[in-house]
Amino acid sequence: MSNALPNKQITLAHGGGGKLSRELVEEIIYPIFDNNGGHRLLDSALLSLDGGNIAMTTDSFVISPLFFPGGDIGKLAACGTINDLAVAGAKPRFLSVGLIIEEGFEIAYLKRILHSLAKTASAAGVSVVTGDTKVVEKGNCDGLYINTTGLGVVPENVSLGPEKVSVGDLVIVSGSIGDHGMAILSTREGLSFRTEIESDCAPLNDLTEKLVATGGVSVMRDPTRGGVASILHELAQESGLTVEISEEMLPVHPAVNAGCSMLGLDPLNLANEGKLVIFAKAHKEEEVMNVLKNHPLGRSASVIGKVTSREEWGKVLIETTLGAKRILPLIEGEVLPRIC
Amino acid sequence: MSNALPNKQITLAHGGGGKLSRELVEEIIYPIFDNNGGHRLLDSALLSLDGGNIAMTTDSFVISPLFFPGGDIGKLAACGTINDLAVAGAKPRFLSVGLIIEEGFEIAYLKRILHSLAKTASAAGVSVVTGDTKVVEKGNCDGLYINTTGLGVVPENVSLGPEKVSVGDLVIVSGSIGDHGMAILSTREGLSFRTEIESDCAPLNDLTEKLVATGGVSVMRDPTRGGVASILHELAQESGLTVEISEEMLPVHPAVNAGCSMLGLDPLNLANEGKLVIFAKAHKEEEVMNVLKNHPLGRSASVIGKVTSREEWGKVLIETTLGAKRILPLIEGEVLPRIC
Repeated sequence: MSNALPNKQITLAHGGGGKLSRELVEEIIYPIFDNNGGHRLLDSALLSLDGGNIAMTTDSFVISPLFFPGGDIGKLAACGTINDLAVAGAKPRFLSVGLIIEEGFEIAYLKRILHSLAKTASAAGVSVVTGDTKVVEKGNCDGLYINTTGLGVVPENVSLGPEKVSVGDLVIVSGSIGDHGMAILSTREGLSFRTEIESDCAPLNDLTEKLVATGGVSVMRDPTRGGVASILHELAQESGLTVEISEEMLPVHPAVNAGCSMLGLDPLNLANEGKLVIFAKAHKEEEVMNVLKNHPLGRSASVIGKVTSREEWGKVLIETTLGAKRILPLIEGEVLPRIC
Repeated sequence: MSNALPNKQITLAHGGGGKLSRELVEEIIYPIFDNNGGHRLLDSALLSLDGGNIAMTTDSFVISPLFFPGGDIGKLAACGTINDLAVAGAKPRFLSVGLIIEEGFEIAYLKRILHSLAKTASAAGVSVVTGDTKVVEKGNCDGLYINTTGLGVVPENVSLGPEKVSVGDLVIVSGSIGDHGMAILSTREGLSFRTEIESDCAPLNDLTEKLVATGGVSVMRDPTRGGVASILHELAQESGLTVEISEEMLPVHPAVNAGCSMLGLDPLNLANEGKLVIFAKAHKEEEVMNVLKNHPLGRSASVIGKVTSREEWGKVLIETTLGAKRILPLIEGEVLPRIC
């Protein structure tokens, strides 16, 4: 391999479809996904999925920096897509991986990132089955962008969605909010700010499967960019109901709180990569909270509010720690770009 | 909409997961895929595919320029992935679309490109079912990159692959080679070179379905970046056989020939986006060539050679117009980057 790939950096020829492309794919990329649930990585993967509906989701990851406390773009690219399938009630099965690499990118970094992606997928029971690699000239991409597209199977009896939400449903978050956003912010160049906080980046499919099994979940979402606030607005809009949450009940890591105070941010707007917002039937509270509290990814779960009325379509209210009730604003965009 | 999207350019906030993101997706992107085989564009699409194996493929498109004679990146992003499924013998059904957009990109261009993608997919009987949009800062992407991931169904009785190739198989190309590569080259800035050639960019699934039905196809590939030469090497390697082609039999548009002479290139190395390389059983030649000649995308098809022996593993020979037989070289990379 040292002969075949004398350069330690990606060159444009690595993306050109010729010999160097093949070497990159066969000598660097394929071996990483070798132990891949028995699936060879093919240009077009042949899969068999039996029974149920198929869920398909896609996500491009353009995060900066590529490595951050608690993970890297590879782990994130696996988790992000697995979690999109998981919250749809699907059992994630297959991933495709599309790489856009900047000329000059260190191959050692690429390998580290792909190993991280492969390991995360494999631990979640998901096989990477097909991929694509493109290279663009220096200055036309910020190191590496990754697209993952995922396929999962939704069991016949599972049906989640905003139409299942009713007045009285509890609003639950599965743990401390804003960790991913704060972990990324703290590593950004130019921010003279450090914290011990790590990204919460994790595959949620094991937890979601157990939650769905309680029969108490109306709908779930994973609050990534835009944060919990954005997901609450989305679900209030889609279900046509009013959601009320309590600021006091929000689980927030002290370091995230401190960082938010310093930077003038709200943890509700910060990205998460391993958290759930769950709307659950009140009579199933005990079962749902039991599943959460007994799962490593749900230990700090908290009921943060409930669905209160049908009178005002798509409204989200927050009761502040001072007891005032106000409308939770929907921000225009992410507080900082490229958080995922 | 003019109120909601006062800017004509993409801003970083369009990619931030907030209100502007939602407006971009709901007001610009969703309506484009509205008439989409009855499928709503969802973050995680629920699909039902009955019977057969599922084929999955992914491709990122990083072409420069975004608009070219005969197409644009949208049409290309649909065709490229549809064709990867088609050559696997699959009936393409569903596409995901992942956008990475550079801050400052013209929304009018984005709409034009997505319309083109939607129209091409729809004409090929394929539904766009899920998508994702990211925005990166100016200077971190060259306008727009698109990932498409495709799902198709492989009928139970269809089985193609390099292992089906045998000595005596004919090597066929479905039409003139190098058109896409030359069309792109002729539009590149800095090349004082113009030609009337258009990209051959087209979805091949109708043609491949008819070809498979003849029962005469051993294996098919679509020769994109790396060109026909790259695919011949790939198939010679994978089948472990020697392939011999005749330069004289290669269908090449006179303008592509002229351009290649001028630029010192070989049409065999230029990208195609609507062509097939087919290895077919000799006793089925008539049926296979009939299908090709009677299809708008196969009219200029030509038998360019055959599989000659098992003696030398993975060798590709070309008989030049002067009668000499030489080894067809496999180039290191694409002649120019970002041709697809």
